[in-house]
Parts: sequence; C-alpha cells; structure tokens
Amino acid sequence: MKHLLSTDGLTAADAIRILDTAEEMAVVGEREVKKLPALRGRTVVNLFFEDSTRTRISFEAAAKRLSADVINFAAKGSSVSKGESLKDTAQTLEAMSADAVVIRHWASGAPARLAASDWIDAAVINAGDGTHEHPTQALLDAFTLRRHWSRIAGRTSLGEDLSGLRIAIVGDVLHSRVARSNLWLLTTLGAEVTLVAPPTLLPVGIESWPCKVSFDLDEVLATHPSAIMMLRVQGERMNAAFFPSTREYARTWGFDDERLAALEASPAKDTIIMHPGPMNRGLEISSAAADSSRSTVLDQVRNGVSVRMAVLYLLLSGDDSAQPTPAQEARV
Amino acid sequence: MKHLLSTDGLTAADAIRILDTAEEMAVVGEREVKKLPALRGRTVVNLFFEDSTRTRISFEAAAKRLSADVINFAAKGSSVSKGESLKDTAQTLEAMSADAVVIRHWASGAPARLAASDWIDAAVINAGDGTHEHPTQALLDAFTLRRHWSRIAGRTSLGEDLSGLRIAIVGDVLHSRVARSNLWLLTTLGAEVTLVAPPTLLPVGIESWPCKVSFDLDEVLATHPSAIMMLRVQGERMNAAFFPSTREYARTWGFDDERLAALEASPAKDTIIMHPGPMNRGLEISSAAADSSRSTVLDQVRNGVSVRMAVLYLLLSGDDSAQPTPAQEARV
Amino acid sequence: MKHLLSTDGLTAADAIRILDTAEEMAVVGEREVKKLPALRGRTVVNLFFEDSTRTRISFEAAAKRLSADVINFAAKGSSVSKGESLKDTAQTLEAMSADAVVIRHWASGAPARLAASDWIDAAVINAGDGTHEHPTQALLDAFTLRRHWSRIAGRTSLGEDLSGLRIAIVGDVLHSRVARSNLWLLTTLGAEVTLVAPPTLLPVGIESWPCKVSFDLDEVLATHPSAIMMLRVQGERMNAAFFPSTREYARTWGFDDERLAALEASPAKDTIIMHPGPMNRGLEISSAAADSSRSTVLDQVRNGVSVRMAVLYLLLSGDDSAQPTPAQEARV
Repeated sequence: MKHLLSTDGLTAADAIRILDTAEEMAVVGEREVKKLPALRGRTVVNLFFEDSTRTRISFEAAAKRLSADVINFAAKGSSVSKGESLKDTAQTLEAMSADAVVIRHWASGAPARLAASDWIDAAVINAGDGTHEHPTQALLDAFTLRRHWSRIAGRTSLGEDLSGLRIAIVGDVLHSRVARSNLWLLTTLGAEVTLVAPPTLLPVGIESWPCKVSFDLDEVLATHPSAIMMLRVQGERMNAAFFPSTREYARTWGFDDERLAALEASPAKDTIIMHPGPMNRGLEISSAAADSSRSTVLDQVRNGVSVRMAVLYLLLSGDDSAQPTPAQEARV
Repeated sequence: MKHLLSTDGLTAADAIRILDTAEEMAVVGEREVKKLPALRGRTVVNLFFEDSTRTRISFEAAAKRLSADVINFAAKGSSVSKGESLKDTAQTLEAMSADAVVIRHWASGAPARLAASDWIDAAVINAGDGTHEHPTQALLDAFTLRRHWSRIAGRTSLGEDLSGLRIAIVGDVLHSRVARSNLWLLTTLGAEVTLVAPPTLLPVGIESWPCKVSFDLDEVLATHPSAIMMLRVQGERMNAAFFPSTREYARTWGFDDERLAALEASPAKDTIIMHPGPMNRGLEISSAAADSSRSTVLDQVRNGVSVRMAVLYLLLSGDDSAQPTPAQEARV
Repeated sequence: MKHLLSTDGLTAADAIRILDTAEEMAVVGEREVKKLPALRGRTVVNLFFEDSTRTRISFEAAAKRLSADVINFAAKGSSVSKGESLKDTAQTLEAMSADAVVIRHWASGAPARLAASDWIDAAVINAGDGTHEHPTQALLDAFTLRRHWSRIAGRTSLGEDLSGLRIAIVGDVLHSRVARSNLWLLTTLGAEVTLVAPPTLLPVGIESWPCKVSFDLDEVLATHPSAIMMLRVQGERMNAAFFPSTREYARTWGFDDERLAALEASPAKDTIIMHPGPMNRGLEISSAAADSSRSTVLDQVRNGVSVRMAVLYLLLSGDDSAQPTPAQEARV
C-alpha cells in the first residue's frame, strides 16, 4: 500500500492490517509517555483546500505522536486553491521532501489525481475530497465497531472483520463522503449496510450499491441494527429546494429523544449510536442521544488518532520488512 | 492544583510556588540549550476563540521549551466559536488526549465552565476570558515585581511575597481582565493596590474590592507607588459614549512625558512602569515612558514565558512526588 | 555574519561559504533520517507581514530539519502589521528568546531596520522585503546554477564561484526583489547578467547597475546564455497602465513554446530555464517550458531548503569554532 485514497478497492486484508496496527497504537496512547520514535525525521504536510480543524488536528496529533515533523499548509483562499495549480503545489511539497501529504480538497478525485500523477513520490492520504470519500473516517468507524462488538462477545478484536454486524447509515447520503467510504469499507469487512434517507438525498444509481435502502428510519430501528450512524447535516444545504425544513428533518430523519426512548425500551441493549462530528445537536441527533452511554462519538474521535497513526506508520515505514513493530519500537 | 482559572481564590502558597518554579525556569532559559525534557509526549492545545498572537506564542514557546507537542486551534470564525458547542470542542480535544487546554475566550467564565464540567480531564489554563480574568498575566506581573524589588533590597526572591509594595493600576478597569487578575493576586501576596480610573470606567460594586480607588493619577503618583501599571486601551471602546476623547484620555490618564519627568525628579528612584502589551504608544503610555529604564514591558514578556512554563510544569507533572525538579531534569 | 539582509554587500567568500554548507545539508537530506541535532533548543520565528506559504514552509522545513523549534507569526491583518509597531513586535520576540527572526515584509528595508536597531539580538533573515531583496532566493538560484554547471563540467562544486556563466533575467525587473538579489549575488560570484525587460519595467538608474540591459528577448536567447531566469508576473500589476496586455506580455516577454523549440534546435544543449515560483503557466512561462528537462523549477525548491538550513546553521552556530560541522553532527 503506497497511498490511502479510498476504501472502495481497499482489500479486507489491508483494512484489517490497518485496524490491527491501530490497536497497537491505541495501547501506546494509554501509556504515560505517548510518543513513538517511528517517524523521526519524516515530514507530514497537511494540505487543506477546505477548513477542517478537527481532521487537521487529528492527523497532526497522530503524526507528532510518531515523532514526525508536521507542516500545516492551508491552501484555502490562497492562489494555490485553484485546481490548475495542484500540480505545482504538489511538486513543491515533493521538492521539499514531504514524506506524506494529507490532502483535504473540495474537488472529488483530487487526491487520486495527485497519487496517479508523477508529480510526487510522497504517500498521499485522502482526508476528504468533495462528495467522494473520507477513508480514515470509515476506518475509525470500523475500528470503533470492531472494538465494541468484540468486547460484547468477550473477544479480542485482532484479526477480525465485521461479519454479522448490521449498520444503518442515516441522512444526507447524496452529499456524504463519510457514507460512501463507510459503505465500501463496512461491506468489504462483511457487515450489512442499510442506507436510510429521503429519496431526494440518495444518489442516482444507488440500485447497484451493495446495500439495502430504506425511506423509514423507525422501520429500520425496529430491526435492531448493531449501530446507527447519523450523518452530519451540512448547514449550507439546509435551504436547498430538495431539503426538508430543519424541524421536519429532525422529526423524520433525526435520532431524537423519542427514538432514543424506543431504543432503550427495546431488547437491542448493545446497539450503538455513531456520529462523525461535529454534531448539530437537535438536528440530526438530540443532545440526550449524543450524550447517552450508547453514543460512541468520543470513542470515534479517540480512535481517529490511533487509526491515523496506523495509516501514517504503514505508509511511511510499511514495506521495509526489517522494520520493528510499534510495540518493539516503544521498548527502545 | 489541577487548573489555573483565576487568581481570585489562588492561595498565597500556590502563587508563591508558581513564582518560585518560574525562577527555576528562568535560569534554564539563560542556558545555551534551553530545552527541558519535562513534558515530552504531552500535548498542549492552544484553543483560541479570540486572536491574541502574543499570548498564543508565549504559551507555545513555553510548552515547546518543556518538549511538549503543541497544537494550535484557532476557533475564531469557525463553527466551534459558538458558545453552545464548547462542550463538543472540549470533548474532542479530550478524546485526542490533550493534556492541557490553554483557552482564550470572549465569554467570561468559559474556562471555568470547561474545568467544572466532566467534559474534560485535561488541565485547563485560562489565557483570558471576557472581562473576567487573565491569571498568567497577573502571575508574570507579580513575578516581575518580586524580582525587581528583591534585587533592590539585595535579596533573592525565592519564597517571598509582595508585602510592603504599593501598586497603582491605571485606566479602563471596567473592561480589564488584567486589572481584575492583578488586583486579586497582588493583594493576596500582600501588596496594596490603588485603582486609578475615571468613574465611568470603574465597575459597579467596587466599594467591596480590597483596594483604594482614586480619580486623580497625579495625586497617586505623588505617593510614590512601587509600580505603576498602565492598562491597555481597547481601540474598539474608544468611541463609546462613556469614554473621553483620545487626547483627553492621554492627558488625564496616560503616563505621558510630563508625568515621566515628574517621576524622574522625585525621590522614587526605583518605581517601575508596567504595561501588559501591546502598547498604544502616545495614548495610555508615551514612547519615552515605554522605552525608559523604568519600563519593565520587555521583562514582563520575558517573564511570561518562564511563568507559563512553571504553570504547565506544575499542572502537568505537579502531583507526582517522585517527579524531579526542573533543575534536576536539566542535568539529564 | 550575524544577519542575512541582502546580497548587495555579501562578499564572495561569505556567499561561497553558504553554498558549500548548503552542499553538506543537501547530502543530509538524501539520507533516510534527515534530521540534524544542530539547533536543538533554538527558536526560529517566522514573522510574516505578507502571505507567502512557499517561503514560510521552506524555512519551517529547514529549521525543523535542524531540530529547532518553529513559531509561526502571521502579522498580516493583525494590529502589528502597521509599520510603527515593528519595534514593539521585535522586542516582544526578543524577550521570548527568539534566536532567529525570519521576516517577510511589504516595506523595503524593514529587515535592515530591525537588524540595525538595538531592539533585538536575534539573527535577522530577510525573507523578502518590498521591492528590495530576497537574498535566500538568490542564494538558492546560485546554488542551482553552480550544481548544474559543475556537473556539466564533471567537477564537484565545493569552493567554486560562477565565473564564466552568463545569466538572462527576464520580466518585471522594476518590481522584482528576486531580480535585484540575483543581480548582486550572481555578479559578485563572477557571472555576467543581462536584464531583459520592457523599458517601462526597468528601474530608474539602471545604467549604473553592473549588468547589460536588453529590450529583445530573442536577441538575448540567440547568445545562448547559461541560464534564463523568468520572473514571476505579479497579477495585481497586470492591469496597470505601464503593463502590456497578458497576451502581449506572453508573446514578447514569456518563455513560450516557440522559444523553447528554438532553444532545443540550438547548440545550447545545457542552458537551463529557471523560475522562482509560483509560476503563471501560459504567461511568463509555457507549460512545456516549465515541465521540460531544462527546467530547474523543482531543483530550486529542493535547494531552497538546503540553502536555508545552511543560513540558519551559519547564523545560529557559526562563530563558535569548536562547533562540529553538519557532517560530524550527523554521525552522532
């Protein structure tokens, strides 16, 4: 694996390798001194064509915990934010010896274009591109699911996939890169996915996707899925013609207090509520749901750092078979 | 001590412990290699809801000199700048394993709300909140006062308080968190404080504050205070109805060339002129005063790094009794 | 050498010392672990009164590769961007123990004013000031030229100057600090420089500069210069009265496909095409020219990090004769 561009096409073996490495990283994170020397002298550039403080600082924390140097490059608003100069920007970073470029771009496909080019030798990590993919988000969601359900089953999660889990992904699927990345990854790992959305917020061609589709959230909840993944509503789309009103959206598609009560009253005692953050409390998720013991919102954030450490580690030191494992290095 | 939220309520013993630790840090700063390993692997997040480059880089320099990793999070303008999501932002930082959150917020009380919550385990350091407090500014001012007057008296300053010192704080007390933090801290440390301001720029209820109040700067200067602390005039308040004109302000409440001449002609040869920066030269302080040998403006900046190192050090490694002192660690 | 403010006045010996040190740094950059401990514990502040992401991250990468701590201070837009407070800003950085201040400023002479003052003890490095100078750009250009032509001649480049090289600098000389810095440095190092520009884009007094002047790019190309250095067109000047139209500019002063074809057909097989970046493809340089094997655009970026490492190293550890060389330190 040289780049991480999407989960569409990621093999189950590679995905599990990332998740297993993230488990090792999570253990490091629990020690008093959290820093590993693994990437000392390597440079990770956060190249952000869109603002995303949470994703940026998660990658920044992950890279620093591996002792890499981090350079933040906010391209938004500057001359380089125009598509035509992605090549020149990339080549500049390459010439400065960037070892990895973590790219967030408003244009679907920009990271893939970068990786397919001969502009750059650095590892390219997609940190969200247009409405296309956000693979590390899906990996941290899979990690969170695997940890939760292995613990319920009294197992360790190393080496496992997500066979037998049933996940509902709820909301604006049409515009969501999180939904896409999760759909491909979770199904690759053996889970069954149901997309729940108003017909206007589903993409054309969804019939060929490897999932079920539902227009009724309560019907899906009644099947007791393993996890309900609420998508973030993008404020700027709220007034568009194809979007219901805020109140209507919350009532029909939000995980509100009534649905939480129904879930609590059901036998589905281990079902979790997921959200990629930042949450619109009171819109796609109620505060009670967000703060309930079923919510894994903060686990997801925490696991995000471990998963991104794993991705950086595997991409930047992965193909050297003499490379010590993180656990071995931690002993140094 | 788990957080540093205010100087109101800080005990003299805790304050002196911070000042004494800052003395050790200042010694480290004078060595060729200024870096201590004390906070290696710890993460300090600068969470700034208001711009303040000076305060931010002072904390950044302090944290880096202790080998901590620093992540800058400028919340201003982003979606997280709205009060209702302070909780989610805090929990996100917690989940990313922030060990300390240095918070600057436009809302008085935001740091205390953060610390009182169960949102976060990290140490919370108030870097200025609304018109409430700016405790590290007061600590660096106290440090500067203690060093100056100990040197005059031919003493070392370790373990000492500020008994016997008389401090005049001059200007827009009403809106000043610096004035409040200094008032509580300096009086706790035994100094006598006089607030000097126009009646319109004094808060309601000042009668119950532990200080004298004066409406005549020259009268106060004639008493030869140990230090005159000029407050910064906030430009955006200059045109408000209760504010005199710029020229009027400078003449009545500014430390101008005439007052400097009067001070120089007086027997108060050790009186110092303090300012938290950045200065409005020609408004609350004249250039001659700012640059005179009595001015401690730059000492205050320098001491700010030592005091912030001390606060980070004590909060992040303070309650482990087996912890080596900074001086011991420096020998490693 | 205490500061690096300009190439006007830099001796050939000092310039060659920087280039030779940069050669050592370039070798370090090719190793697996690129980090040197040379500046551990030192603080480099990037003080930018104008945006320039490329220059800022080049200095940031250089400083971090030498293990320095880097603090980015974007003064643009903030209160400190006003000229009158340069003094207070500088003194603040000094008081925070900045060891080097890398300054980019819109005002010609601001770095020199800083260095000449007693405001600051830190080393001052000019990262571009107004239309005055951009010395590290010229040094990286000289480095690129020296490497290229030494390799052609089958020589190592250590200790050498640029005698015998003929360089054409083409475009808006009037407003270009890159042109000025290169003119002084390249001629000091023995090269012969021809400035090629429309009369309206040449400064008054050019008769006294140590160079030839031409108003005909094709005539100059026919003389087979060692290198053609294309200047960046500043978009904001494009509509000014004294500027030709975009198309007219490209045809008359741009290195376009026709000129590239002519060069390829000529016997000048080793002539290189240089550009400081970022390029306006299709304006001062065509895409074919920018991407041709003669283009050194990316070498220049790469060499920029090595040259800036050399400058930081020499300024911050240069006068200690017991100091190990970078190569010796790398063995530690």
